[in-house]
Amino acid sequence: MALVVQKFGGSSVANPERIKRVAKRVTECKEAGNNVVVVVSALGDTTDELITLAKQINPNPSEREYDMLVSTGEQISIALLAMAIQALNYPVISLTGAQVGIRTDNTHAKAKIMGIGTERLTEELNQGKIVIVAGFQGVNINNDVTTLGRGGSDTTAVALAAALKADVCEIFTDVDGVYTADPRLVPNASKLKTISYDEMLELASLGAGVLQPRAVEFAKIHNVTLCVRSSFNYNEGTILQEVSEMEKDIVVSGVAHDLNVVKFAIYDVPDKPGIASKIFKALANATINVDMIIQSAERNGINDIAFTTSKDDMDKALKVLDSLNGDLGSPSYKYRDNVAKISIVGAGMITNPGVAAMMFEALYEEGINIDMITTSEIKVSCIINAEDTEKAVKSLHNKFDLDKIS
Amino acid sequence: MALVVQKFGGSSVANPERIKRVAKRVTECKEAGNNVVVVVSALGDTTDELITLAKQINPNPSEREYDMLVSTGEQISIALLAMAIQALNYPVISLTGAQVGIRTDNTHAKAKIMGIGTERLTEELNQGKIVIVAGFQGVNINNDVTTLGRGGSDTTAVALAAALKADVCEIFTDVDGVYTADPRLVPNASKLKTISYDEMLELASLGAGVLQPRAVEFAKIHNVTLCVRSSFNYNEGTILQEVSEMEKDIVVSGVAHDLNVVKFAIYDVPDKPGIASKIFKALANATINVDMIIQSAERNGINDIAFTTSKDDMDKALKVLDSLNGDLGSPSYKYRDNVAKISIVGAGMITNPGVAAMMFEALYEEGINIDMITTSEIKVSCIINAEDTEKAVKSLHNKFDLDKIS
Repeated sequence: MALVVQKFGGSSVANPERIKRVAKRVTECKEAGNNVVVVVSALGDTTDELITLAKQINPNPSEREYDMLVSTGEQISIALLAMAIQALNYPVISLTGAQVGIRTDNTHAKAKIMGIGTERLTEELNQGKIVIVAGFQGVNINNDVTTLGRGGSDTTAVALAAALKADVCEIFTDVDGVYTADPRLVPNASKLKTISYDEMLELASLGAGVLQPRAVEFAKIHNVTLCVRSSFNYNEGTILQEVSEMEKDIVVSGVAHDLNVVKFAIYDVPDKPGIASKIFKALANATINVDMIIQSAERNGINDIAFTTSKDDMDKALKVLDSLNGDLGSPSYKYRDNVAKISIVGAGMITNPGVAAMMFEALYEEGINIDMITTSEIKVSCIINAEDTEKAVKSLHNKFDLDKIS
Repeated sequence: MALVVQKFGGSSVANPERIKRVAKRVTECKEAGNNVVVVVSALGDTTDELITLAKQINPNPSEREYDMLVSTGEQISIALLAMAIQALNYPVISLTGAQVGIRTDNTHAKAKIMGIGTERLTEELNQGKIVIVAGFQGVNINNDVTTLGRGGSDTTAVALAAALKADVCEIFTDVDGVYTADPRLVPNASKLKTISYDEMLELASLGAGVLQPRAVEFAKIHNVTLCVRSSFNYNEGTILQEVSEMEKDIVVSGVAHDLNVVKFAIYDVPDKPGIASKIFKALANATINVDMIIQSAERNGINDIAFTTSKDDMDKALKVLDSLNGDLGSPSYKYRDNVAKISIVGAGMITNPGVAAMMFEALYEEGINIDMITTSEIKVSCIINAEDTEKAVKSLHNKFDLDKIS
């Protein structure tokens, strides 16, 4: 008997009809002879509605109370999905993060999973029940509710699959799998049959939006087989596997774009040791994830430093920069939020020189200005103007013949 | 330093403005030098909205999942109220029933509180924090969420006041206190300054609607001083005290009416020992609270038995009666839900004969038919047609000169 972890996102359970459809899908998996653990996110816009309500009361609540509030969204989902499965006459039980024993650190709103208790889960599965677990949430050592941050339900699903040694973790979403580019921008984008964890990691952290990067990282470390597929049809999805099994002759697997980016530039920073560390330590202390970092070559004893964060962290980052001003001499800073990050990703890139050059050429041919560049072994990213996004993605998809991948 | 428990119902926190007003009220109590524990119900219609959503998915969900669902309502309230108090710059923390350690029995949807852990509460109070506790909910021995049933937040507040040995438990509601009759029906109804636990118990269980009977019972057993007052003004409320301090010369303190009543009548029940026990044991096993019970005098070896329940239990009671049919020979039953229970309540009634007769006379003078009668030491109740409710309450209020009580 196989053990399958299935994860359904907010859009899959946005209304009673969809919840019933998910219930049917879950029971089909059970009926096929599997033990089934289901992770579910909050219904459609519930989380956003709760946040809107909170902002009317306090624009700046503590993150502890924020977590107390938004974690109710998933608790509603698990109860409703359990009810829908009861209506189909299958034994089922819903469990909150606290009830499962999903233990996290103390960082509210962005908690990291430290461990998962499997006792209750195993007990319920042994009784033949389908177990529904609230995604996105856990408890810290004080028994206070914590949430895992954006897309945290993916992480919950993968962590459960790892803890229970599940055979597969299926991530149901509103797309058929992982594509060579966003099909809304590039109509002839191809669906990938397989992709490596590392490529997916780059794509996810670049805003391909299908899977949360922490979830992929978790899957890679614990060797969890992931399958990304649609909750609206029965098409085969995309399997995440180790790179050894990948076709090596594909240089670039996909083009990703991310509009949830703010670029900060700090000018006239004294060229002294410890300055960069001071800036990025302060940002880290405020639990801001900094993505790209660039420091210009020193000129007349001063530097310019630029970095990007997600838009969610913009207000916090601005506060940190304001508070730093005194320590840094008299630098000034600017920020821009009408930017996009465009990236090409591919495990075959390491062994193929000139891929970055092809990317810059494609952007140049479209007259698109490049603001920042970073590279890793399997990707190249550029910051460009937000309004150039679609043009950039299309030209890169075309340049690397991605419509011909299958 | 006094310890005050304050309880605010759903209408007091129905929208952001009202939540802010409650926050102000709570901080005023803190500012006056008290330790403050606040119990809060779900926002306005949240619970009903969740139940409507559930019914679209499964008209008959398990009570465990029902509790998992509806308990989110109070969790939303406590987080939002804590945020509102943070906005006023007071230290505050919200706690769910599970976090406080409100331990209940295993009866979902109608759980009884078995004990309250005071460790976390005391710790937070000692740190100078206002503590907000979710009403209506607890956890059973399996760590599953339970709810306390209709008006359970009152019970939570009184139980917390008892466990913490609070100086007073203030129940904030949308009325100024306890009246001699519902002021919506009887415009010249008087507000009582004090009332005994027993009288309040009768009034509450009769649907006066201000306080949950279990809460009053709890308060009586643990000698918790209760104060019922309005969350919309600063008027003095009604204090619940022991009867010894009451004015003994008031015979009738109030007239109560309850429209949440169904009357069941079982005809042609064999007059054999154990039949009544069989019926009411089956109803009890289905956790149906039976209120009035009447058995007619035996005639030709058969009896008629009538009883009332709340409308919430109607469907369950019908099921029980259908399942019993075989065991009881061939009785038939009827039920009516267009009835009301009208009661007069007063601690002075015991020593005053003829009070019941005055009640029947008043109803007779209005041409109101009496369907069932029950009496206790401090109350007389009659079942009448629902459409006669207002006329009956007015005539009784007038008959016992209740507009002259102050």
